[in-house]
Amino acid sequence: MSKINKRDLQRPSGFPDLSPVQAIAIRDATSIIREEYELAGFSPMTTSIVERPEVLTAKNEGEILNQIYGLRLLNPASDAQDDSKELALRFDHTVPLARYVATLYHELEFPFRRYAIGPVFRGERPKDGRYRQFTQADIDIIGNGSLDLLHDAEMVAVIARIFTRLDVGTFTIRIGHRKVLQGLLQAVGLQDEVLQAKALQEIDRLEKIGRKNVTKNLCDIGMSEVNAEALLQQLETTSLDTLTDLATENSLLREGIEELSEVLHGVEAHAVDSAHYQLDLTIARGLAYYTGTVYETRLDSNPGLGSIASGGRYENLTGAFSNHSLPGVGISIGVTRMMKRLIQAGIYPADRKTVARVLVAQATTSPKTRIQALEVAAMLRQQRIATEVYIDSARLAKQLQFADRRGFTWVVILGIPDMEPGHVAVRTLATGEEERIPIKLLPTKLS
Amino acid sequence: MSKINKRDLQRPSGFPDLSPVQAIAIRDATSIIREEYELAGFSPMTTSIVERPEVLTAKNEGEILNQIYGLRLLNPASDAQDDSKELALRFDHTVPLARYVATLYHELEFPFRRYAIGPVFRGERPKDGRYRQFTQADIDIIGNGSLDLLHDAEMVAVIARIFTRLDVGTFTIRIGHRKVLQGLLQAVGLQDEVLQAKALQEIDRLEKIGRKNVTKNLCDIGMSEVNAEALLQQLETTSLDTLTDLATENSLLREGIEELSEVLHGVEAHAVDSAHYQLDLTIARGLAYYTGTVYETRLDSNPGLGSIASGGRYENLTGAFSNHSLPGVGISIGVTRMMKRLIQAGIYPADRKTVARVLVAQATTSPKTRIQALEVAAMLRQQRIATEVYIDSARLAKQLQFADRRGFTWVVILGIPDMEPGHVAVRTLATGEEERIPIKLLPTKLS
Repeated sequence: MSKINKRDLQRPSGFPDLSPVQAIAIRDATSIIREEYELAGFSPMTTSIVERPEVLTAKNEGEILNQIYGLRLLNPASDAQDDSKELALRFDHTVPLARYVATLYHELEFPFRRYAIGPVFRGERPKDGRYRQFTQADIDIIGNGSLDLLHDAEMVAVIARIFTRLDVGTFTIRIGHRKVLQGLLQAVGLQDEVLQAKALQEIDRLEKIGRKNVTKNLCDIGMSEVNAEALLQQLETTSLDTLTDLATENSLLREGIEELSEVLHGVEAHAVDSAHYQLDLTIARGLAYYTGTVYETRLDSNPGLGSIASGGRYENLTGAFSNHSLPGVGISIGVTRMMKRLIQAGIYPADRKTVARVLVAQATTSPKTRIQALEVAAMLRQQRIATEVYIDSARLAKQLQFADRRGFTWVVILGIPDMEPGHVAVRTLATGEEERIPIKLLPTKLS
Repeated sequence: MSKINKRDLQRPSGFPDLSPVQAIAIRDATSIIREEYELAGFSPMTTSIVERPEVLTAKNEGEILNQIYGLRLLNPASDAQDDSKELALRFDHTVPLARYVATLYHELEFPFRRYAIGPVFRGERPKDGRYRQFTQADIDIIGNGSLDLLHDAEMVAVIARIFTRLDVGTFTIRIGHRKVLQGLLQAVGLQDEVLQAKALQEIDRLEKIGRKNVTKNLCDIGMSEVNAEALLQQLETTSLDTLTDLATENSLLREGIEELSEVLHGVEAHAVDSAHYQLDLTIARGLAYYTGTVYETRLDSNPGLGSIASGGRYENLTGAFSNHSLPGVGISIGVTRMMKRLIQAGIYPADRKTVARVLVAQATTSPKTRIQALEVAAMLRQQRIATEVYIDSARLAKQLQFADRRGFTWVVILGIPDMEPGHVAVRTLATGEEERIPIKLLPTKLS
């Protein structure tokens, strides 16, 4: 068989492997996210990774259209009915959800709530070093015709429980509102929607480029310096009360303030620790997409990670797919990106190389000790203790080195010549301590 | 926004969605598989879904080469460095494992064991109605230079524990051996490897077309009827002892019998119930691939499902990628295919439409009961009781209908006018029974 050359064995950039250490850590975190989604009554609903290109492009515009991967058969058999031009990889979980809900509208019970955890694909330019395959963990609630605002509050409670359990330090969920933001722009005289969009883009960069630069840029798109400064001051408020005067004159702003107040009341009722969230009127998120509440989440110790859980309320999920009005609210956690960064920054522990804590080894080997090793492992597994057996012949020192490098906690050693019958040695790797105990006490000792 | 037409909303065949009912059932089964893999000391290692085409095609031949999907950008931006011709979707977990082990050979500890659970893609012809995306759950153990035979025994123990826990009725793991099979072919005079391969293909069809037809087909490829019948009789033995005479004359057969005996001893040591496995010399599996022990697993009640867990020993994992000798043994469970069939056949229960058992509802609504509903849900979730809230305004009858259709067990009803303060009603949906209890007793009542 001809060898392929080394260059061809290299990973294409943006499609990383997860080593056992990373995979164990990410699996643990994903389990927590899944458990919390389920605790809040979200059930899994899993769409295929492959959608029709028409579905993926129907509602979207801009950059994402250049990032969608279609499929093609590498070597189509001559007789194959090759339909691969009708196949493409999803770039998020929202479009597939919209397609699913539009197609099964008459069979679903609303509000329809589901979670989705799985890979999505985006053809970012490889030189940018971004992930091109990554796992997203989403929840959404979809209403039929209308959807109560208190669902928006629930999202905050779910995010708070997840990051409390992930134990990655203090975090802040920022809650904003598109109507309040847009209303404030109107209140300072920015009526034109194109100019509003430009202003929102600038406001989105407040943290990155600072207030002074944003003021300047707002002036560049036609605002007076007085208005720009007034706007930024209003956006930086931490209480909705300060905006009430402006709201009497602007119905969009009034509506936004009322909605946001209701959501904040709901967050309180959900018993979310007030240290975990704050009003932040500067967050805009997907400009064309969200229409009400918007969320971002930052780690207080590491705001540079960017938002680790984001989302918001959208007026209609299925615009391009159905004539029904299906408002929704949802959040998304970019698991791969977040976890790789949390691990790299030392914020999330990734130190387990094996899920098993016990290795069964042999000091001397014989057909009898080999069989005994399997029997001991079978007994421990019967007691739900994850166990690996070193059955290949090797000196004990090599087996202990293997155990150490792989990160086991205990080694159970069989085949020690002077051992009492029915006994084994248990070595605790961290201390090097070794103890001889009856085999039947192993489950107690090792749990 | 223009609507896309209905035809474009249809799923491409072979890429199915999983409804919540299916997704919950499959998630439960996948959790059991994952837990049992981990219990046996396998850790997750996750490769990207995308590989270089050269990697996927290096070691493979035949049909699979026509089934590999490559990627292409649907609308490449003019300035993009489009490398999508270097991207393709994996069709199994074994080739990516080989690439991973070959690349990281010097960093890994051997024996290297890992599990992989995730989607793979095969461009089957759509008219065949096969899945083109499906989840496979694999374990493999890779040795450096050599790998003890007792690892082969462990595979049987893992399969047995999984299907016992899945509770899908009695099952039989069939254990065969490629060397025994090939040795028997040699012993009846079939020396030519091309003819051997043809004979193996026929033997593989024994169950499907019956002994008489296989005998006929073996004669067609050049065996005498006497030899063909002798061969089939030998293959049907349930004890290796009957083959010992033949083995003295054939070294390959002798080697195979010795190896297989060792494996069967190991299976016994692993405390696998003898009802769960049997010797079956007729199974051949991937002709070019496996070199020793081979496994198939059937449900006794439903053999027509085919093998639900298969695998075997291979002499060298990384032939095309590395000069090291890396023997391995592994099994694969085709989760999607198996579960869809088990659910369809009523063998695996898929009846839960929601992961939550409790719905909080309101008989009459007010700002106060709305907030109270969230508070009650927060309390139950705090006690790890999965809970959904019906917060949108609707008559109680509609909320109860919703609860019934969605499959909740209990409805907690707030806002009943004559209720004692601090109390709620708990309705058990199966019986329609309703009970009034203090809120603080809810966690006990509902767990």
